[in-house]
This record gives sequence, structure tokens and C-alpha cells, in this order.
Amino acid sequence: MGIKKTEGKCDARPSAVVLLSGGLDSAVTLAVAVREGFACEALTFVYGQRHGREVESARRVARQVGARHHRVVSLDPSLFAGSALTGGPAVPLDRPEERMASEIPCTYVPARNTVFLALALAYAEARGAFDIFIGANAVDYSGYPDCRPAFIEAFERLANLGTRSGVTGEGRFRVRAPLMAKSKAQIVRMAVELGVDASITWSCYNPDDRGRPCGRCDSCRIRLRAFAEAGLTDPLCGDEGEV
Amino acid sequence: MGIKKTEGKCDARPSAVVLLSGGLDSAVTLAVAVREGFACEALTFVYGQRHGREVESARRVARQVGARHHRVVSLDPSLFAGSALTGGPAVPLDRPEERMASEIPCTYVPARNTVFLALALAYAEARGAFDIFIGANAVDYSGYPDCRPAFIEAFERLANLGTRSGVTGEGRFRVRAPLMAKSKAQIVRMAVELGVDASITWSCYNPDDRGRPCGRCDSCRIRLRAFAEAGLTDPLCGDEGEV
Repeated sequence: MGIKKTEGKCDARPSAVVLLSGGLDSAVTLAVAVREGFACEALTFVYGQRHGREVESARRVARQVGARHHRVVSLDPSLFAGSALTGGPAVPLDRPEERMASEIPCTYVPARNTVFLALALAYAEARGAFDIFIGANAVDYSGYPDCRPAFIEAFERLANLGTRSGVTGEGRFRVRAPLMAKSKAQIVRMAVELGVDASITWSCYNPDDRGRPCGRCDSCRIRLRAFAEAGLTDPLCGDEGEV
Repeated sequence: MGIKKTEGKCDARPSAVVLLSGGLDSAVTLAVAVREGFACEALTFVYGQRHGREVESARRVARQVGARHHRVVSLDPSLFAGSALTGGPAVPLDRPEERMASEIPCTYVPARNTVFLALALAYAEARGAFDIFIGANAVDYSGYPDCRPAFIEAFERLANLGTRSGVTGEGRFRVRAPLMAKSKAQIVRMAVELGVDASITWSCYNPDDRGRPCGRCDSCRIRLRAFAEAGLTDPLCGDEGEV
């Protein structure tokens, strides 16, 4: 966690790697990391997801929230083939409400967070960073197996077993999921408190022909409900969705 | 592990994903998996390693040993920047003998096996495979933190926590490292027993101008010593190295 030089200036802050999708959760996570005093290396993966618009949002968020660097890395989408998000079999992205709470979503991408955290770990170790931030959240309708505290803890343990830095004691990797136990409404309030511009984030899986959020997919519904519960209007979606 | 169709023919064998570098260890690992009755999906990653020749060897090995498919996947080498293998700082690849046994090699690539296993896991889950084979080996001069039994066990645990298949009980992922406790001489003997053509594998980090193994890098020395201990001559390197 030495002193880093950036554009001719010294940056004495410790480094952190932050997974940044372009959605609201990862934007707030980045803002938390910046607030904690980290020089943030934001990392966005492109892997054939349907909503490429997310990547443009990630770029804007990295600038607005104040990442030190932002890197967009392409991954071969065929590795993940089989998810509704990567062009797998056609499945409805708007599920009945009661199914959202009990099922693993069809938007589950095989081992996605394992892959993202593994690449973030490589990136962190190569740069002397020991803190890795991820916007994983287990509350509300998440349902993703790789968004649970037990998964994050298991990855942190792995990180310290499988790296030079972890083994030599040079540093201890920490996988930080500051939104894990937050409700979606709490995350919306954090966005406001931390000055995150929610209008530049992106959550929708199925934008319409004019590039507007559909208001109907799981992600839109969760987001709209969150803003409603926080007593706010979503600057991106408005309050027109089918909440 | 259902029946797979391949080129019009049914393949009733269960599928396995096998990490294949093109070196002798991964070739033998693939042969073990084939011998165990798996239809093998071999996976090779290209990530800016100096010895691109390995990839051509991986292609030949996949054919010779009998993988069902072989996929070569490119990874952004800048993710791993900092290793002697990915064009990091210039460091001697031929270390004094006494240092080989006690140090993490300079050829250590940050979190490499974490990344490779994570991608293999995504690939496996997307294809309904539950067995992942890796040629990790903790004996002799390995020294890599991500080649130890504790690391492999931790990854297996993670795999079953962070995937749909693991969580729903659809299947249990197994990370198989059949060479873990083998000496290099034993691996050479296994290659012979399993019919692996060692002459098409590749191990050298620093081939000479004519594309021949240097005989001096850690990898060449370990390989030459292994063949000598097994009472055999390396069909690739001969016995001219500085054993």
C-alpha cells in the first residue's frame, strides 16, 4: 500500500480495486470506498451482457464518483453461455412477484462473482492493493448464490491462501461488500448521502427502442420500489414503472 | 452430466473441464481424466505469457490425448502485470538451485490458478460438468501458493457455495488435482503409462532463437531432472540440459 504516482502527483492513499457494473449498487460501493479514503481502481467486465449500456454508465460513474482509474476488460462471453443475460435461452425477464423472492433468477450468470473477484484479486495483487470492493447484496430479491456473506467470506479465505501476498504475510486481502445487509431503499439513501448521481447509473435488463428503462424487468422493479420506499423519485426511471 | 451430442454422435460420458497449459503436467492430467471416462473439455488461457509456444503444444496435446473439445481463451494480460511470465520486470528465470526450493518463483503470476479455476467453473456450470481437473503439483520445487492442497480444497468449497448447481444440489463440483502428491519422476512415468506423447508438450520459459528449450530455466531443469530420475530421456529436450 505504498505511495502511488498518478499523472505526476503523489497519491498517498492506499489502493482498492472496486468492481463497477454501472448499476446503482456498484456506484454506491465505489462511493463508499472513496469516502473511506481509498484510491480506487474501478474494474468493469464486458462479457456479452445484453445491456452494453451498463458499460457506458460505468465510465460515467467512475468519473463522477472519483475513481483513480477505470479499466474495462472484455471476457469471452461463451465461457458463461447459458444465462439470460449472455444471450442464452429466451426466458422471461419479468417474473411474477412471488417467484422473485424464492428463486435463483434466470439472470444468474454461471459463477460470475467468482470470476469477477478472481480477476479483481489478480489485478489487486499485481498493483499492491489489498482491499477489493463488490456491490453484492443479499437483501430483497437477490437470490444469487454468489451474493451471500458465506460466499464472500469463502472467497476472502481463498484469496489469502492462493496468492503470494497472502502467503508471505505481505498483506491480508479483504473482500468488502458494504451493501451486503442493506435494503434497496437504504442503498438509495446512501447514494444521496454520498453524492452519487443515480441518473447516470443503469439497471434495466430490457431497455425499450428509445434506450429507456423498461420498468418491468426484475431489476427495474427492484429499483423503482427502492426509490419509492426511500420516498424519492428515480432520476433515471421516474416513477412510471409498474411498482 | 446428461448425454451430450457431438458431431451427430451421442456421447454418454460425463463431462469434465480440464485446464490445459501445454506442459507435461496438464497433458498427463488430461490423460487421467480421459482414462477415468470423462468427455473432456480442455481449456487453455492465453494471457501474454512469454512462451506462446505452449498454446500450440496445448492444441496438439488436446488432439493426441483425446479431448472432446479444446477452447483457447484470451485474457487481458494487463490484469496479471507484475510477473516475469507476463512481461513484468526483468528477473532471472534461472535461479540458484537452493533458492528454487524455498522461494515463491518469480514466474508466479498473481492469482493465476484462482482466475483459471474460476473461469473453468463458469465454463463447467454452463455445460453441466461437475468435475474440474487441474495439473497442480505441490512436490519438488513448486513453491506456488495456488498449487497446494489447501488452496484446491478452498476453491472446491467456494465453487459449491457460489453457483446455482452447488446451491440447489443439482450436483457437487469437484476440483481434481490428480498430480498433487506425485513427484515429477512419477508424472513422467504416468505420461508413459497413459500414452502421452511428451515430445509435443512444452515446458521451457526461455526457448533459444531456434525455438528449442533452453535447458536452464526452472521449468527445464525440473523436467530434465524428472526424466533422469525416471530413467528416461526427454524426447523434447534430450538429456543435454544442465541437470
